[in-house]
Amino acid sequence: MPTRKALSEVAHDFHGRGWMAGTAGNLSARSASRPDCFWITASGLPKGQLEPSDLILVDSESDEVMQRFKDSAKPSAEVAIHRCIYGLFPEARACFHVHTVEACLAAGRVSADADSLPLPALEMLKGLGLWDQKPQASLALFDNLLDVPQIAAQIQQRFQAQPPQIPALMIRDHGVTVWGASLQQAYNRIEIVEFLMSYLARRP
Amino acid sequence: MPTRKALSEVAHDFHGRGWMAGTAGNLSARSASRPDCFWITASGLPKGQLEPSDLILVDSESDEVMQRFKDSAKPSAEVAIHRCIYGLFPEARACFHVHTVEACLAAGRVSADADSLPLPALEMLKGLGLWDQKPQASLALFDNLLDVPQIAAQIQQRFQAQPPQIPALMIRDHGVTVWGASLQQAYNRIEIVEFLMSYLARRP
Amino acid sequence: MPTRKALSEVAHDFHGRGWMAGTAGNLSARSASRPDCFWITASGLPKGQLEPSDLILVDSESDEVMQRFKDSAKPSAEVAIHRCIYGLFPEARACFHVHTVEACLAAGRVSADADSLPLPALEMLKGLGLWDQKPQASLALFDNLLDVPQIAAQIQQRFQAQPPQIPALMIRDHGVTVWGASLQQAYNRIEIVEFLMSYLARRP
Amino acid sequence: MPTRKALSEVAHDFHGRGWMAGTAGNLSARSASRPDCFWITASGLPKGQLEPSDLILVDSESDEVMQRFKDSAKPSAEVAIHRCIYGLFPEARACFHVHTVEACLAAGRVSADADSLPLPALEMLKGLGLWDQKPQASLALFDNLLDVPQIAAQIQQRFQAQPPQIPALMIRDHGVTVWGASLQQAYNRIEIVEFLMSYLARRP
Repeated sequence: MPTRKALSEVAHDFHGRGWMAGTAGNLSARSASRPDCFWITASGLPKGQLEPSDLILVDSESDEVMQRFKDSAKPSAEVAIHRCIYGLFPEARACFHVHTVEACLAAGRVSADADSLPLPALEMLKGLGLWDQKPQASLALFDNLLDVPQIAAQIQQRFQAQPPQIPALMIRDHGVTVWGASLQQAYNRIEIVEFLMSYLARRP
Repeated sequence: MPTRKALSEVAHDFHGRGWMAGTAGNLSARSASRPDCFWITASGLPKGQLEPSDLILVDSESDEVMQRFKDSAKPSAEVAIHRCIYGLFPEARACFHVHTVEACLAAGRVSADADSLPLPALEMLKGLGLWDQKPQASLALFDNLLDVPQIAAQIQQRFQAQPPQIPALMIRDHGVTVWGASLQQAYNRIEIVEFLMSYLARRP
Repeated sequence: MPTRKALSEVAHDFHGRGWMAGTAGNLSARSASRPDCFWITASGLPKGQLEPSDLILVDSESDEVMQRFKDSAKPSAEVAIHRCIYGLFPEARACFHVHTVEACLAAGRVSADADSLPLPALEMLKGLGLWDQKPQASLALFDNLLDVPQIAAQIQQRFQAQPPQIPALMIRDHGVTVWGASLQQAYNRIEIVEFLMSYLARRP
Repeated sequence: MPTRKALSEVAHDFHGRGWMAGTAGNLSARSASRPDCFWITASGLPKGQLEPSDLILVDSESDEVMQRFKDSAKPSAEVAIHRCIYGLFPEARACFHVHTVEACLAAGRVSADADSLPLPALEMLKGLGLWDQKPQASLALFDNLLDVPQIAAQIQQRFQAQPPQIPALMIRDHGVTVWGASLQQAYNRIEIVEFLMSYLARRP
């Protein structure tokens, strides 16, 4: 399936789960023909009705818009985070960011200055590449700043110094971002991360 | 899409989410051709099966029924609240009212005489127009009176004196009402408000 | 829509909500042509795949099977409760019984010997016919006995002495039964009762 | 419906419920024509898109792959548990294993060295074959070991010494496994077991 079509179907799927309420969240995938560019959802659109023509091609170096199908379309405000992920992880070909009640509740369970959220040692962690019997893993937490490029800079600095244990991060009071070597892998991984968030949100 | 068709689709959508159980809730939108009138769901109908012909055209000044497709159809009992919203906010073109367990639980977390519900400083607030880093916002709370026009009068009085921080209000033990400059904007906004209610209902 | 077709669609709908898991629950409606008989779901069938031919016609007086489309079909084990409801409430034309986690949790919040479950004074009660400003209502609770006709006898005795406040009852650790003057009314009412159960199950 | 088609439909169904997130879980059913073999879901595939050709035929004695439609397909890592179940229970013809937040939470409510999880005395237990008025039943708990054949060996040893009360088991921090004399019976039973897990996870 062409990348833009696939991304719009993921948008419909995630909106139906309540993960992209009220235009929230953004999805991207590297262009198959131009891997130095990625397609990203346009800003401010309801994700339950996203069309393939609502994807915008952005240069992952320069942030320049390379292609758009609607004149008014602007890349998501969080394009800086997607660029940062593609820059840090050359193998990443898709990057998804969603907003869920569960992730916000889970992150609210650690102190406000914690920089990571310990994950429960559930079997599901195997799907994120952790094959220990009782894996001790955590999800990197970042503060939710109004200035998105500043969040991206903090991600860049932290992950360059120390790569994350799992291919995901959480912006507190905001939501998770997950990436993968394919659209399907990012899809599988975000399901796992949200499973873990749901468990943490509900654990007594 | 014609307004009546669009409203009936929203009704099916929200019923499927459990937001309009047992004929609860009501949806309206200004007529495109006659902006002094609005279409509103007829009273007492199951929203999962609402048809375009179940919408009634009401004059927003006089409350008079201007058009109906079924003789037995009566406007929703809460038409007074919709009229009040369209009167207060000329830019509003759609107004949605739903009943959710989450909103009732969230409002139950503040004292019974509180007149507002503090909202969590989540990223989602941006979708309601609040762009501060840690927005301090609250949702206006009203008592649930048997006499609906009296609720409308209280909304009128309060919002005329001080416009609400966000385009929404909550009637305690009842449900939220949200409005927007288009049907789609009202749809996006009610998703956000319910996201916040769900968070508040579940926050420890 | 013919009664049997309508009942099978309700079964699919409720199964999809998790209200009829693992063959649980039963649905009935009076025959349009023979109001002394009612159609009831056959015993032990998965409700997500119920077909119109899985409904059985039962005489509401004698309990005799009047019509069936599959030789092996037996009426639901809880047919005695449906007969009791149709006998007590001549206006009832449909009766639905479902099993939900929420109703079991809600009923578990009152002491084990309580005979009724106080309902929250939510707006939703209007849909059950309670139009007071802060209605004080409760749901009749019955013990879950292995001998279903004995449960039916207890319902009969109690409701004959004092009609219930709302057209519903709850068998503890089991589920609610709701009835209405039409299939649609029973459908609307069970949505409301489950809304209330969900609220009670989650209220702090 | 052919077995492989039926299993793929169950996979789509359970994925839609969040029971098979991120490629988790596995489903199997004995071959109709060769009851000494069973079809099992291939490893590492997203269950929402499973196709009939993603099922692999495995010999239940030797663990040998008897048939596959895609060269790269490998049987699920948990094939050892399915073999163990078919060996222990000759009447079993289908075996389903899913991962849910509710089951992990429910099992987390007993001490970490408990070997069984007491089940609530709900009516739903009848669907698992327990017809006492207040059944005292429990679900066998096993530790989640990295070495799956070792889990299978523990199941084998325990159930051979004492058959389980209900046709199900739970691997702590992982998920339940349920079996039945037909695909439909396993389907009904897993719905019941997950209903019980959801109740336990939420009970105060």
